[in-house]
Amino acid sequence: MRYDLYYWPNIQGRGEYVRLALEDAGADYVDVARGDGGTDAIIKMMEAAATPPFAPPFLKAGKLVIAQTANILQYLGPRLDLAPKSEAGRLWLHQLQLTIADFVVEIHDTHHPIGVSLYFEQQRVPARKRTAEFWKERVPKYLGYFEGLLAASKGAWITGRKLSYVDLSLFQIVEGLRYAFPNRMAAFEADIPELIALRDNVAARRNIAAYLQSDRRIPFTEEGIFRHYKVLDL
Amino acid sequence: MRYDLYYWPNIQGRGEYVRLALEDAGADYVDVARGDGGTDAIIKMMEAAATPPFAPPFLKAGKLVIAQTANILQYLGPRLDLAPKSEAGRLWLHQLQLTIADFVVEIHDTHHPIGVSLYFEQQRVPARKRTAEFWKERVPKYLGYFEGLLAASKGAWITGRKLSYVDLSLFQIVEGLRYAFPNRMAAFEADIPELIALRDNVAARRNIAAYLQSDRRIPFTEEGIFRHYKVLDL
Repeated sequence: MRYDLYYWPNIQGRGEYVRLALEDAGADYVDVARGDGGTDAIIKMMEAAATPPFAPPFLKAGKLVIAQTANILQYLGPRLDLAPKSEAGRLWLHQLQLTIADFVVEIHDTHHPIGVSLYFEQQRVPARKRTAEFWKERVPKYLGYFEGLLAASKGAWITGRKLSYVDLSLFQIVEGLRYAFPNRMAAFEADIPELIALRDNVAARRNIAAYLQSDRRIPFTEEGIFRHYKVLDL
Repeated sequence: MRYDLYYWPNIQGRGEYVRLALEDAGADYVDVARGDGGTDAIIKMMEAAATPPFAPPFLKAGKLVIAQTANILQYLGPRLDLAPKSEAGRLWLHQLQLTIADFVVEIHDTHHPIGVSLYFEQQRVPARKRTAEFWKERVPKYLGYFEGLLAASKGAWITGRKLSYVDLSLFQIVEGLRYAFPNRMAAFEADIPELIALRDNVAARRNIAAYLQSDRRIPFTEEGIFRHYKVLDL
């Protein structure tokens, strides 16, 4: 099946977790808003869908229009051979993806603790405080959790010997934290050797390596989730 | 099947969305940490589970241990007759629940914009700013979205003539906003007549009415998601 991905064309954002899954699987997909239709295509589909999304990303798959990043991955997982077929296996994988989604909100809020409608410059002081709390309390808790699961895994991937979409998302988390907080992350990486090894294993996959070299991979910028502001790094 | 719910015994919190589903369905369940085992039972299960949760709530169903509120509801939905059986119907309902989950994070962060490890009193100034943004930008966006879906629905409930777990969660959102922000919410309710009618329809359901009168319904307090601080209301 051909999949149509609808997401903002100029940022990685939450769409990137879906892009990584589609790319690793070599799926037949179109990143709609990066084509001629642009962002107008997103707005049109949001208004026309029988199940209107609250926000991008969303995926058109045949007649279905599916939104919420983790929900899209849950749908794609078994179809792209990136998730187990059993209900128990799928629930566990989805649970992990939802935990990553919670972390992504907290990553975003380091630079926007007061509100998305305000500029970073308008919330620089609370952003510094939130970022300090984030690195003191939240990064060790979240990454420590995934590090522990990897240490207990019987294979290189989070659920064992078979790659899943959660592994691809964890790659993106490591990449993003390295981009946004190079100094803080460099000091922290010794605590998460398993996650760093996973990041390297994902980067070395043939389809992912080709994707990262291509212009389909949008660079990190200060309009995405992971933003590099020197004042928030050490 | 008997379900064991693991959640903090002294707050509604995220566990309440699961409690409402179990109660409306008249399910056979135990709210484990409210019994003799207390919170120790939560910690023990988090350490012992083959699929360890990142945080409560989680549900034990036979051999499965399932975490993340929306994931638990997705599992329970078809089993408690609170979700359609088709994949398309289940994906749509789950998508809506994930949008509610996003809103719940933003509700929580009105009183904790800097960090969960700090007291409210340590973040009172940014909390006032975040709350102002929340009511100006986010409440109209989220509640306007659900109001629109209800207005377009062919029945009293969000997906039509059949109640789902999403309707029960929307009841909790209205109740919580009324508790936390009585003045702001009173001024806003004229904009969401469909959501208020849904709230009344849920409250009138036999099992829910009995639950709300029982001591199984924990009161709102300033330790939960929805907190009433006069300084954040108008």
